[in-house]
Amino acid sequence: MFKYIQTSGKARRGTLKTAHGEIQTPFFMTIGTAGAVKGLLPSEVRALGGQIILSNTYHLHLRPGEDIVAKAGGLHKFMNWDGPILTDSGGYQVFSLAKIRKLKDDGVEFQSHLNGETIFLTPEKAIEIQMKLGSDIMMVLDECPAADADRTYVEKSLKLTTDWAKRCQTFFIKNRRDAPWRVSTNPSGLFGIVQGGMHHDLRKQSAQQLVDIGFDGYAIGGLSVGEPNATMYNMIDATVPHLPTDKPRYLMGVGTPQDIVEAVERGIDMFDCVLPTRNARHGHLFTSQGIVRIKNEQYKNDFTPLDPECQCLACTQFTKAYLRHLFMAKEILSLRLNTLHNVAFYLNLMKQIRAAIENDRFGEFKKEFLDNFKV
Amino acid sequence: MFKYIQTSGKARRGTLKTAHGEIQTPFFMTIGTAGAVKGLLPSEVRALGGQIILSNTYHLHLRPGEDIVAKAGGLHKFMNWDGPILTDSGGYQVFSLAKIRKLKDDGVEFQSHLNGETIFLTPEKAIEIQMKLGSDIMMVLDECPAADADRTYVEKSLKLTTDWAKRCQTFFIKNRRDAPWRVSTNPSGLFGIVQGGMHHDLRKQSAQQLVDIGFDGYAIGGLSVGEPNATMYNMIDATVPHLPTDKPRYLMGVGTPQDIVEAVERGIDMFDCVLPTRNARHGHLFTSQGIVRIKNEQYKNDFTPLDPECQCLACTQFTKAYLRHLFMAKEILSLRLNTLHNVAFYLNLMKQIRAAIENDRFGEFKKEFLDNFKV
Repeated sequence: MFKYIQTSGKARRGTLKTAHGEIQTPFFMTIGTAGAVKGLLPSEVRALGGQIILSNTYHLHLRPGEDIVAKAGGLHKFMNWDGPILTDSGGYQVFSLAKIRKLKDDGVEFQSHLNGETIFLTPEKAIEIQMKLGSDIMMVLDECPAADADRTYVEKSLKLTTDWAKRCQTFFIKNRRDAPWRVSTNPSGLFGIVQGGMHHDLRKQSAQQLVDIGFDGYAIGGLSVGEPNATMYNMIDATVPHLPTDKPRYLMGVGTPQDIVEAVERGIDMFDCVLPTRNARHGHLFTSQGIVRIKNEQYKNDFTPLDPECQCLACTQFTKAYLRHLFMAKEILSLRLNTLHNVAFYLNLMKQIRAAIENDRFGEFKKEFLDNFKV
Repeated sequence: MFKYIQTSGKARRGTLKTAHGEIQTPFFMTIGTAGAVKGLLPSEVRALGGQIILSNTYHLHLRPGEDIVAKAGGLHKFMNWDGPILTDSGGYQVFSLAKIRKLKDDGVEFQSHLNGETIFLTPEKAIEIQMKLGSDIMMVLDECPAADADRTYVEKSLKLTTDWAKRCQTFFIKNRRDAPWRVSTNPSGLFGIVQGGMHHDLRKQSAQQLVDIGFDGYAIGGLSVGEPNATMYNMIDATVPHLPTDKPRYLMGVGTPQDIVEAVERGIDMFDCVLPTRNARHGHLFTSQGIVRIKNEQYKNDFTPLDPECQCLACTQFTKAYLRHLFMAKEILSLRLNTLHNVAFYLNLMKQIRAAIENDRFGEFKKEFLDNFKV
């Protein structure tokens, strides 16, 4: 499934094969939480260089429900995206969005943040939902402890996460090819998720336990939850050596352009984050010169492009003064153009990262990038 | 400026020449209130068959201000639309949106609905703003009385509207070619606006007074303000015979697809309305079979296109079930696709209307259309 091409230091350049095409690594997954990238068409994400979309099991289970998506022929057909889709397991959202949750050995009971309905999510159910969605890369159900959780809690939580990972894998293997309710006939990949809080030894233990079970790829979860950047980078360093080199490594929910560059340097292949799309909606735009807060007075009469190095529609067809006007006037087109640009920026960053590794100059690239990118 | 090609009954098929290209009549103007069509790119409006965009003087004066637009090189450059633009005068918005307004002989004082700032709009100022925007077709400042205003009020208001129309024309002629602050070097058109409430004789009087002054086109204002449809059609009939046949006729702010068909039959050439764009945002979609309220339960599992006769993106790439999901999930893509479709529907209706007049079968077309279009 995963193939190496080239390394530059610990940074890796490879390909990841899925039932919906091969992905060039390292890559960033544009977020399409509820089966739609905020304001963008799938064809636009593709044109910007998007290779894969991430959707959320939790959101799609609540609305419209996986059975409707399955009836549509799966999420690819439902949302009209023919590239690969990764779905998370819903674990993180249960802990961050849902009201009142009760953790049990068997699974987690929670109330929908939409209508208060009580839902019981088990490891098996999480995989079943993802299979009905027709996901290309599925994630195990995990528990993500808070950054300040004490060691006793994290240890207990880790045991549960490992047990659930095993149960997910058993259910996945049993049903991936012949369950009548699965959507795709193509075998999909299942990824484990390393937890262990901010403890080196627990991260190592988690990685080893998951590798013993055996997954198609390994994610690092529970980071970027409020800890300092240095701690996050440290936890990546504590985990990566215990993951197999022939499987893809996915840093979940990270991060800023700086974080991505730092993590690639530490051997990470896959990323997802709401930053480009969410920040776009708040007028917080990523450019080759750094962050532009488009509502700032200084852009009122600025008829230059948002980012002269960017080839997206927002940068080639409009000026900062117009983008500022759209933002101040709360125009829908503002959300759309800002999102388009930020996604273009992230996808373009990944292209530059891949080229730098190919030319075995990732270290230099990283230095140049961080020097130019002003926060 | 306006040229006849063909009639079918009283329905007229012609062309209207502007500095930014020739428009085929009858036509519908997509609303771009604040210099942007809600959620759509100018290139998309064009691809759907949009020939002209309408923008609002009131909104653009308040934000970003006509001086910024002028510095950008005019509204066409600011919003990146190279087709014709019609701007209203702000009169209607002062009466419908602004807080506390004082009508004076000289103009109207009002408070901005955005920040409460006191603004004094005169006929001359309304034209100056439109000239700074670089509008192709400008409208005179008028007063629009409420549908239930008494005759004494309407008579007084009409006198003011006629006086203001004359002042607008004087100012327009004086400045159209050599005022240093005007944006376009191309002469633009100025339209008068017939008022007169729901009184046949006052409508006639208004039309005759405006024709005496002499404008490039004539609008009928003050309709679709709450009166019954029959009254509106009646007022059109009371006005049209008093307008010259060699000038375009514009029914302001109207209307439903049915209204448009009825008005074309009565000799109207131009329309604008917020219905397609505003209703789109409320999930109220126009189709060849009638109105679809996309949030309805019945579309949950409906994997057919929204309108099988429509060639827009929303209809060719997605299903009703997906459009319903996007609407329920309050996705930005829902606003975008719904707007795209409704604009496509209106622009396509105008194409069908033009073809029917060309084939001298407008009466039959009208009957077929109204039979199929279920409200």
